[in-house]
Amino acid sequence: MSVLPKSVENVIDEFGKLPGIGPKSAARMTYHFLRSPNKDASKLGNALLEMDEKTKFCSSCFNVTDKDICDICSSTLRDHSKICIVEEPLDVVAFENSGIFNGLYFVLGGVISPAEGVTASELRFNDLESRIKLVINESEKKIELIVATNPSLEGEATASYILDIFNTYIKEGKIQVTRLAMGLPTGADLEYADRLTLKRALEGRRDI
Amino acid sequence: MSVLPKSVENVIDEFGKLPGIGPKSAARMTYHFLRSPNKDASKLGNALLEMDEKTKFCSSCFNVTDKDICDICSSTLRDHSKICIVEEPLDVVAFENSGIFNGLYFVLGGVISPAEGVTASELRFNDLESRIKLVINESEKKIELIVATNPSLEGEATASYILDIFNTYIKEGKIQVTRLAMGLPTGADLEYADRLTLKRALEGRRDI
Repeated sequence: MSVLPKSVENVIDEFGKLPGIGPKSAARMTYHFLRSPNKDASKLGNALLEMDEKTKFCSSCFNVTDKDICDICSSTLRDHSKICIVEEPLDVVAFENSGIFNGLYFVLGGVISPAEGVTASELRFNDLESRIKLVINESEKKIELIVATNPSLEGEATASYILDIFNTYIKEGKIQVTRLAMGLPTGADLEYADRLTLKRALEGRRDI
Repeated sequence: MSVLPKSVENVIDEFGKLPGIGPKSAARMTYHFLRSPNKDASKLGNALLEMDEKTKFCSSCFNVTDKDICDICSSTLRDHSKICIVEEPLDVVAFENSGIFNGLYFVLGGVISPAEGVTASELRFNDLESRIKLVINESEKKIELIVATNPSLEGEATASYILDIFNTYIKEGKIQVTRLAMGLPTGADLEYADRLTLKRALEGRRDI
């Protein structure tokens, strides 16, 4: 005799698949819904189904969207000669929320990580190449690719890989590949900065 | 121009309503689903809808169930003269998983908590009274009510309230109201036990 109805156990199991959610948290989240009087479970349920149905990847930048081409890629107000290459859709959200970038994006879908078994073939390097070729043919301006992968070992390796792909175009002067600056973050304490961050900060020092 | 499709924002909003889930965690959980290739969002969505549709409260003990009367209340193998009064359905799960109790339950739906604005009228005291009256009429044995609210101030106040409700029946010798023992938990260190726990442990001392 099971204590919990099957339908409740199913929800606990599904919550438990989320990263960082253990069985106890999954049970607590499920019971929150059982206690809530205003059909919150159905609201979340319907929202999830609608999201699964409506969202897709933009066929140009692979960000999450509900259109074929996302609002950013189709905007004529944005600088189409600057393409910021990021790992995940959430990185696009971070840039957009900061309001500091007016170019376009390309979402790789991750970084090359031998430790986690992610090889180059699982990321969108082919799509990136086709996209850039298209942009080069359409634009008269020099294209800037801003590699905005995370400042991790994997992010660095992925940046090098991108540099290799576009080597010929770089030599022909058609594109320029840049990388986000590395150094001390605002509010950091020199005393606690790790060696690599300090090294990058020193290497990237500027006149004041 | 919003960065995220409305359907994605809806899911983030709904996750954000969960206790202990902030906007960042809600976004991370949502993006996990966007990344997952095997329709996990729809699986959780359908599980939630099914749970909302199928589950109800047992009309006898108010535990979560998919039947009118839950498996525990309808079991003839259990001792119907012992009723354990708990705050939440998860407390029933805790007892059942431990396999130490063979009676029935009654789920109050919380505890009296003036600080959180929970008054007696919001809990199931009326249902508890009707239930116990019914049990007294049906049974020839003396009924034992085991008050298993949490050992908090609110849990204690609720236990006293229950004692008051059944005062007449207790005097008539029809029911007996007991409370879970309080004292040192297994593996505890005397050195770190709080004053109240030590006091209860001393008060409840037994011959060895």
